[in-house]
Amino acid sequence: MRIAVFAGDGIGPEVTAEAVRVLQALDLPGLELVEGDVGGAAYRKHGHPLPPETLEIARSCGAILFGAVGDFSLDHLERRLRPEQAVLGLRKELGLFANLRPATVFKGLEDLTTLRPEVAAKIDLLIVRELNGDVYFGEKGTRTLDDGRRQGWDMMSYAEDEVRRIAHTGFKAAMGRSKKLCSVDKANVLETSQLWRDVVIEVAREYPEVELSHMYVDNAAMQLVKNPGQFDVIVTGNLFGDILSDQASMCVGSIGLLASASLAEGTYGLYEPIHGSAPDIAGQGLANPMATILSAAMLLRHSFGLEDQAARIEAAVGKALAQGVRGGDLGGTDGTRAIGDAVLAAL
Amino acid sequence: MRIAVFAGDGIGPEVTAEAVRVLQALDLPGLELVEGDVGGAAYRKHGHPLPPETLEIARSCGAILFGAVGDFSLDHLERRLRPEQAVLGLRKELGLFANLRPATVFKGLEDLTTLRPEVAAKIDLLIVRELNGDVYFGEKGTRTLDDGRRQGWDMMSYAEDEVRRIAHTGFKAAMGRSKKLCSVDKANVLETSQLWRDVVIEVAREYPEVELSHMYVDNAAMQLVKNPGQFDVIVTGNLFGDILSDQASMCVGSIGLLASASLAEGTYGLYEPIHGSAPDIAGQGLANPMATILSAAMLLRHSFGLEDQAARIEAAVGKALAQGVRGGDLGGTDGTRAIGDAVLAAL
Ligand SMILES: CC(C)[C@H](C(=O)O)[C@@H](O)C(=O)O
Ligand SMILES: CC(C)[C@H](C(=O)O)[C@@H](O)C(=O)O
Repeated sequence: MRIAVFAGDGIGPEVTAEAVRVLQALDLPGLELVEGDVGGAAYRKHGHPLPPETLEIARSCGAILFGAVGDFSLDHLERRLRPEQAVLGLRKELGLFANLRPATVFKGLEDLTTLRPEVAAKIDLLIVRELNGDVYFGEKGTRTLDDGRRQGWDMMSYAEDEVRRIAHTGFKAAMGRSKKLCSVDKANVLETSQLWRDVVIEVAREYPEVELSHMYVDNAAMQLVKNPGQFDVIVTGNLFGDILSDQASMCVGSIGLLASASLAEGTYGLYEPIHGSAPDIAGQGLANPMATILSAAMLLRHSFGLEDQAARIEAAVGKALAQGVRGGDLGGTDGTRAIGDAVLAAL
Repeated sequence: MRIAVFAGDGIGPEVTAEAVRVLQALDLPGLELVEGDVGGAAYRKHGHPLPPETLEIARSCGAILFGAVGDFSLDHLERRLRPEQAVLGLRKELGLFANLRPATVFKGLEDLTTLRPEVAAKIDLLIVRELNGDVYFGEKGTRTLDDGRRQGWDMMSYAEDEVRRIAHTGFKAAMGRSKKLCSVDKANVLETSQLWRDVVIEVAREYPEVELSHMYVDNAAMQLVKNPGQFDVIVTGNLFGDILSDQASMCVGSIGLLASASLAEGTYGLYEPIHGSAPDIAGQGLANPMATILSAAMLLRHSFGLEDQAARIEAAVGKALAQGVRGGDLGGTDGTRAIGDAVLAAL
């Protein structure tokens, strides 16, 4: 049971350390944790945000526990050397094509969202975002046109197999939930979306029990404000998923509690909190590690089939919350270590 | 003073009729209203959603009052014949490159939003969306790859002059408001966005009084939920603007009240409610015409410099609202005609 631990930048190391303590406390047979450098931290040490030795470690493990990357002081670097490229590189190199982003309002924390409590309380959705294609990984560049003007360009595309495999992920997720799947695209403008929609409709034939709907991305952004409770599983492309999953997360109010999984075919996956590296509070022991701890739970469940241990971690976090443990992000004053201690005690 | 009136589909004709009554009641010297067919209605009559005669009318006028287009029963048509193409065609043919979408919570209507009233009350922002470029108007298509797979593709791009002119619109708007401009892009992934950001920074030198910030689109979608009051003017590209402006509108709660302007260089513009054709309530006299009436006010202000008359219309709508007039979209029972009557009475 080899797990790569890539702590990254900013608050990454602090929050990851607490998740590691929780994993260690479970007495998992054969647990081996292997640290690796990513992001700005890796750039400073190795001159690259995703050095080959890190990729090697990732490949030798069954899953990755990921902290956060991002470092404004490196924003001047050419794009391929910036911290965020570590995330994109891992997704591509390891074939992590399916990003699962659950958003649920935690009981007792309805106060934290800017939505009306009665609206927020109904949020229980899962966004399934494609991670290996779209305008993220197409050809791109800057060129000078014949008339001398500079132009920036990026190719957006999806091939049918790329859509098919994420559609299956979406339908399967829907089968395990309330059998409603909403596919989000912009088929009234984009050919990429039209193909997306056609293929999703093809795949739907294999899931006759699932009620499939289609929504344009602009309307989806509206509906997530108007009535987020209407959604169960949303499946969408890389770019729209980036935007909508962040919007949905914030609807929940407590992004310090939200975990995510980026899965490859099979059991391999990368697990990370949805929050960023928060450089403003880094190194001060102020960050809430709960989202990273919950990411570790997702890791045990999805990559190692350890449903019981995953549920144990989740229950412990729930118990700590019920006891009133609150990080600064939740309006409380508990620090990183204290929250880790509370979860460990509840375990 | 020639104004094109393109009522379109669904509730378009009903709501436009009330705005026309309001315009006629103002006794504007030389007012001439010229009707034209657009959208599904035009397709059924002329075989095209934007027939040449409609474009001719548009070109012969100083501004367009637009209702709505959209008709699900025509969704099977090839894309270039679908109702929405009328909007895209008018934008491109007439060089309507700047979409202004104000979002403000109307006093007394804070209850209508799903956001907490104290959060919603602070919303007073303007989204300036580029309308003539981006992935909307690039080359696009579906192809079969060498290995036989189907692929949908769309070229995303911005050239420096396209960014420059919308940046100027954004900075000018900011100068007329609180001198804060937030440019939204995805420069950590897209070359199109990197060029966008570079050019916006260049243009900023001409507006030293404006405080410019940059935000990634995923973060912007989050911040619009977390604290929409932080924004004043947002400038962004066509695709991100489509999503964010709809999200922001819904934050306001009363999309039956929101107007928008799509402006060309000079005074020419197209003015329309931000709501759609609402086929479910079409033809029943149930639609709220206020957003279209307010679009007529924007038209008088921007295209004809009639600030007084514009303000008169806006005051009349405000008065009707204060008197308790409410369309179904605002939880009331007043019909299209009754709302038009109330606004006319208040005028
Ligand atoms: C850092 C960035 C490249 C990344 C993305 O856009 O995918 C992030 O926003 C995310 O959602 O994980
Ligand atoms: C109808 C559609 C093509 C259009 C767009 O995406 O621009 C609409 O959503 C809008 O915002 O006016």
